[in-house]
Amino acid sequence: MAYSGAMKAFQDHYPENVSHCYGCGSLNQHGHRIKTFWDGDETVTRFTPEPWHTAVPGFVYGGLVASLVDCHSTGTAAAAMYRAEGRAMDTAPAFRFVTGSLQVSYLKPTPMGVELLLRGRVQEIKGRKVVVETTVFAGDVATAKGTVVAVQMPEGFGR
Amino acid sequence: MAYSGAMKAFQDHYPENVSHCYGCGSLNQHGHRIKTFWDGDETVTRFTPEPWHTAVPGFVYGGLVASLVDCHSTGTAAAAMYRAEGRAMDTAPAFRFVTGSLQVSYLKPTPMGVELLLRGRVQEIKGRKVVVETTVFAGDVATAKGTVVAVQMPEGFGR
Repeated sequence: MAYSGAMKAFQDHYPENVSHCYGCGSLNQHGHRIKTFWDGDETVTRFTPEPWHTAVPGFVYGGLVASLVDCHSTGTAAAAMYRAEGRAMDTAPAFRFVTGSLQVSYLKPTPMGVELLLRGRVQEIKGRKVVVETTVFAGDVATAKGTVVAVQMPEGFGR
Repeated sequence: MAYSGAMKAFQDHYPENVSHCYGCGSLNQHGHRIKTFWDGDETVTRFTPEPWHTAVPGFVYGGLVASLVDCHSTGTAAAAMYRAEGRAMDTAPAFRFVTGSLQVSYLKPTPMGVELLLRGRVQEIKGRKVVVETTVFAGDVATAKGTVVAVQMPEGFGR
């Protein structure tokens, strides 16, 4: 499998100053610290929700699903931009994306107690924008589908 | 103010079996436990993110913003449905909504360290669906805008 644990995840290449994100920052001790990998032309993240990530008992909170889609997709956007330039993710300058817009359709209730698989696919790269479509699977069942417009982080982001 | 602390929030009326939600369930000890109130024709939720709800240092994680929009909007949908029927929220049968789709546009970085204000407005009630538009403010600045299609929870949800 292309996403074996021995490989570095996209997020392991993020510079330290952008590694504090609650969803995907390796330095955020309270966060989800998701790990995303290439699998051919698609990207994959595996994540098992905690028992308290509940919507109603037995089912996963939609806000968590949205968060996973968000960070999986911005990570995918960064990785896709490196690929488009034929560069490895540990080469400078570093790409990092923020979310311009996030849309999630909830297709079915997402069950608790199983590892979720997110699969992303780049729909479009256009200038500083990357559009990523991500599907969330619980086993074989697609429970949510999202589209993220990721925007390359401006140099002076937030300043 | 119509949303004084002395009033019961929408979420305080949710039946116990739907009070475990990570975003808005009063019984979820790990969750955000947001509280939403009417303010005229609009609904308001106030929430101060925790220090670890970071995107990049100094700014709030977009996934949290999406989660707040989600639960604020489903709560608004329920309250609006009671209003449309001229019923108080503590009367049976109880309305509870799940998210059919969630869309969030991030207008500006949301700063940490300030209380956020979410303001919701019902766009449409159509059968079992309620469309809610919610804006997130940090001080006077609208930092995100979301639209939620909330769907009345089926009796057998998740079974």
